[in-house]
Amino acid sequence: MTDQTTPPGLRRRDLLAGFGAVASAGLAAGAAALPAAAVTSWDMSADVLVAGSGAAGASAAIEARRAGADVLLIESLPRFGGSSAISAGVVYAGGGTALQRALGVEDTVEAMFSFISGAGTRHPPLEKIRLYCEQSSAHFDWLVAQGVPYREQLATTMTVPMAGESLYFSGCELAWPARELAQPAPRGHVPVATGMTGGRVLMAALLAQVAALGVTMQAQVAGERLVVGDDGRVLGMQVSVAGERKTIRARRGIVLASGGFIHNREMVRNYAPELYDCPVPWAGAGDQGMGINMGIAAGAAALRMHQGFAIVPLYPPEAVLSGIVVNAFGQRFVAEDTYYGVLGDAIAYHQQGRAWLITDRGSELPALQDDFLRVAQGNTVSDLARQLGFPKGALQDNVAYYNRHAANSEDPLFHKRPAFLRPLQGPPYSAWDLSLAKSFVPAHTFGGLHTGLDGEVFSSFGEVIPGLYAAGRTSAGLPGAPYIASGLSVGDATFFGRRAGRAAAGGAAA
Amino acid sequence: MTDQTTPPGLRRRDLLAGFGAVASAGLAAGAAALPAAAVTSWDMSADVLVAGSGAAGASAAIEARRAGADVLLIESLPRFGGSSAISAGVVYAGGGTALQRALGVEDTVEAMFSFISGAGTRHPPLEKIRLYCEQSSAHFDWLVAQGVPYREQLATTMTVPMAGESLYFSGCELAWPARELAQPAPRGHVPVATGMTGGRVLMAALLAQVAALGVTMQAQVAGERLVVGDDGRVLGMQVSVAGERKTIRARRGIVLASGGFIHNREMVRNYAPELYDCPVPWAGAGDQGMGINMGIAAGAAALRMHQGFAIVPLYPPEAVLSGIVVNAFGQRFVAEDTYYGVLGDAIAYHQQGRAWLITDRGSELPALQDDFLRVAQGNTVSDLARQLGFPKGALQDNVAYYNRHAANSEDPLFHKRPAFLRPLQGPPYSAWDLSLAKSFVPAHTFGGLHTGLDGEVFSSFGEVIPGLYAAGRTSAGLPGAPYIASGLSVGDATFFGRRAGRAAAGGAAA
Repeated sequence: MTDQTTPPGLRRRDLLAGFGAVASAGLAAGAAALPAAAVTSWDMSADVLVAGSGAAGASAAIEARRAGADVLLIESLPRFGGSSAISAGVVYAGGGTALQRALGVEDTVEAMFSFISGAGTRHPPLEKIRLYCEQSSAHFDWLVAQGVPYREQLATTMTVPMAGESLYFSGCELAWPARELAQPAPRGHVPVATGMTGGRVLMAALLAQVAALGVTMQAQVAGERLVVGDDGRVLGMQVSVAGERKTIRARRGIVLASGGFIHNREMVRNYAPELYDCPVPWAGAGDQGMGINMGIAAGAAALRMHQGFAIVPLYPPEAVLSGIVVNAFGQRFVAEDTYYGVLGDAIAYHQQGRAWLITDRGSELPALQDDFLRVAQGNTVSDLARQLGFPKGALQDNVAYYNRHAANSEDPLFHKRPAFLRPLQGPPYSAWDLSLAKSFVPAHTFGGLHTGLDGEVFSSFGEVIPGLYAAGRTSAGLPGAPYIASGLSVGDATFFGRRAGRAAAGGAAA
Repeated sequence: MTDQTTPPGLRRRDLLAGFGAVASAGLAAGAAALPAAAVTSWDMSADVLVAGSGAAGASAAIEARRAGADVLLIESLPRFGGSSAISAGVVYAGGGTALQRALGVEDTVEAMFSFISGAGTRHPPLEKIRLYCEQSSAHFDWLVAQGVPYREQLATTMTVPMAGESLYFSGCELAWPARELAQPAPRGHVPVATGMTGGRVLMAALLAQVAALGVTMQAQVAGERLVVGDDGRVLGMQVSVAGERKTIRARRGIVLASGGFIHNREMVRNYAPELYDCPVPWAGAGDQGMGINMGIAAGAAALRMHQGFAIVPLYPPEAVLSGIVVNAFGQRFVAEDTYYGVLGDAIAYHQQGRAWLITDRGSELPALQDDFLRVAQGNTVSDLARQLGFPKGALQDNVAYYNRHAANSEDPLFHKRPAFLRPLQGPPYSAWDLSLAKSFVPAHTFGGLHTGLDGEVFSSFGEVIPGLYAAGRTSAGLPGAPYIASGLSVGDATFFGRRAGRAAAGGAAA
């Protein structure tokens, strides 16, 4: 079997608990979605079925239940929480949230909109971004109301705060060229947590609400196919429960919130080849693309399937940012002090996955770091260039140009901030391999089903598929390539998850 | 209406002749594909229905008919021929074709495979490439047998031959880094034609065969929806004929060969944002994405939807290649003497759509060319840099590096061939804007339905959708980003179109 003939979802899926006993032979032969006629009886039912228990699914379940619906939340894995629970739980919020105001941070909806729409992917979903920014402050209040804890403390670090602070610059707002787009503001809202476990705290709060509201929660129930009526309406889902096939009727609607597909290697190769060489799938094991695949099989369009988050975590410590990052031609190509998602994107998507960090005595990576290997060391830049096999004189010329201007506190190419800008000034010089296949580069996917503002899923003809909603990384939302700030993904998942839950509970309204 | 809620196919489609009278209200509400139950009678029928009359559709119709099927070929536009007819008609073939042998050109299947699989998109469809290379020589014989005329004459130009020669280097085989992958060979096979009308000649021959074989051909019949049975089998198609809705029964199978989607602006923005700023849709008006959308609506997966061909036609004359191409940082980023599809890819996908050609006295663009505007002119490189607003000293440094090595006949960065390698040596210096939005950059799309070796269409679960086939730019085939050689698209369309036609005629076999 090869890339041409391998079922993109089945082989890996077969390895997962609960799927082994389910052969596709039992399906109506070849039907991408199950016709209603093939379902003789329903094993379970609910007004709203939510598939997936991460931030998107939990938010959808909460709002659907509050809108009066009988809600069933299923999760393919043994534990609830999805990829959100292993994330840092950052929510990108702004325009003057309660926390921003309490900390004296000035921000506007317009600045937030300019940043998100201008710094990231080309031709982004402007209407979603607009709504997200306008309602961001209210959405943060909602998170607080669900019991997510935040502390009125501003972090000064460039990474997720580790000392319990709840607000920080989580993206590339201060780096060039983003800082010319809009007044920068810290917008990364982090639950109070020990270390980087904010996602666990966030999900604990949301899942507690889900349970308290009386949502029925079932783990180890894995979606397989949507059941679709003759009129195109999505009526339910065929699932696998401990190896047994069951059907669930969703009277008002289904919310697909099953994450992305970074753990499905065939899908990554087919859809997002640039991410295929990233060695670390950064998501919960449930990110198998099943929600996306169920949607496509029912006629949904999927957008931006090639995009994703390739993280090259250069810092901390921030001292390394006084080094320079170069490509295989010895050229700089990005502001080193940008968000590591922007750096990762530049390497994965635009430098064929290859780059090196060049440091001097004062900017070396710490001895204990093991994310990136030192692949050359020498007393001169020429020593490095020779060891790396770089084109003759190229690295030397580029370092000379950089040093000449850095000595005047200038970086004409990428406008690195003064704090990190000084000439490379003394041996030993080192080169560290940042190439995707040779270093620690976590990745996940951003492509997903084409949805509207209420999570309604569009077919390839742009028509709403009745009864079907999607949120989080199962949908094509705010995150794009480059990924410009931590918190956009969980922010998008909670915000649009809520809207999808409400719309699904409203039934035919959407 | 915005990007979130606009039907990607409908608005533009509505502008086309024959579609005006067809409102979607008449469809079964929301059904992405039509259930068989909704079709009370069939207006027409055939064993095999082929949608689209370009190279893929014509090749499919020929082979389906020869396999004994009753074939109906429909075309949405008034004339047959599709985008192939307005192309140069180049077919990329090798491994020792009759024409290569007659001209004393040495080539091997292995060299051709190494080039196609190694020089283009990451993680390409290896099994398709392998088969294509192995059977390339036989496929060329087939084209000759259909009456496509070739002349035993080798061209020395880098572009489609204009003097009736039929073989040339149509890609980046001779440019670095491709030339290190495999022994280069000319593989662009061009029908004998006046100027660049090889596509017309190719399609005239193929369509004459279609007609002679007794295929029923109907123009101005536009596909709208696939009709799908409860078991998932594709049974037929709903079409629009002069504003009237009709249904066509396909007893054995349907081949979707309706081209790509470069003329559908909403689809381009949603799926291939990097191509959205290319000002010239380079395809026939029928490339509206309808075949792809009909397939997706029936549960098919679509791959590589972001990829396409952005053409920056620097040459001829080849003398301009002694200039250098730089990005907004004054850096070179590609071998100037590469195929213009590789250059266009580098600009569109990796330089945010912006680049400039820098020339000296001996490498200026001709006075009469109007593809690219001269945006700066001066007596020194510094004059140019200042006029262009480039970062301080960057262009000057890069030109100095280039000149220093070019004086020794070396190009350490991109290994430009000696014929084009010399220092920039005298005023006036000029800069020409190659940026997508400001110059002549034709583009078309490469993304399409996920198909196997026989054109069978896969659902998102990797299962064959019975009765459905796709070929040409309606499928995800050999062309990727970067597009490495003229002829891969029409080559893929004819080769896999033939296979799809044969398989569809065989009915349940596939």
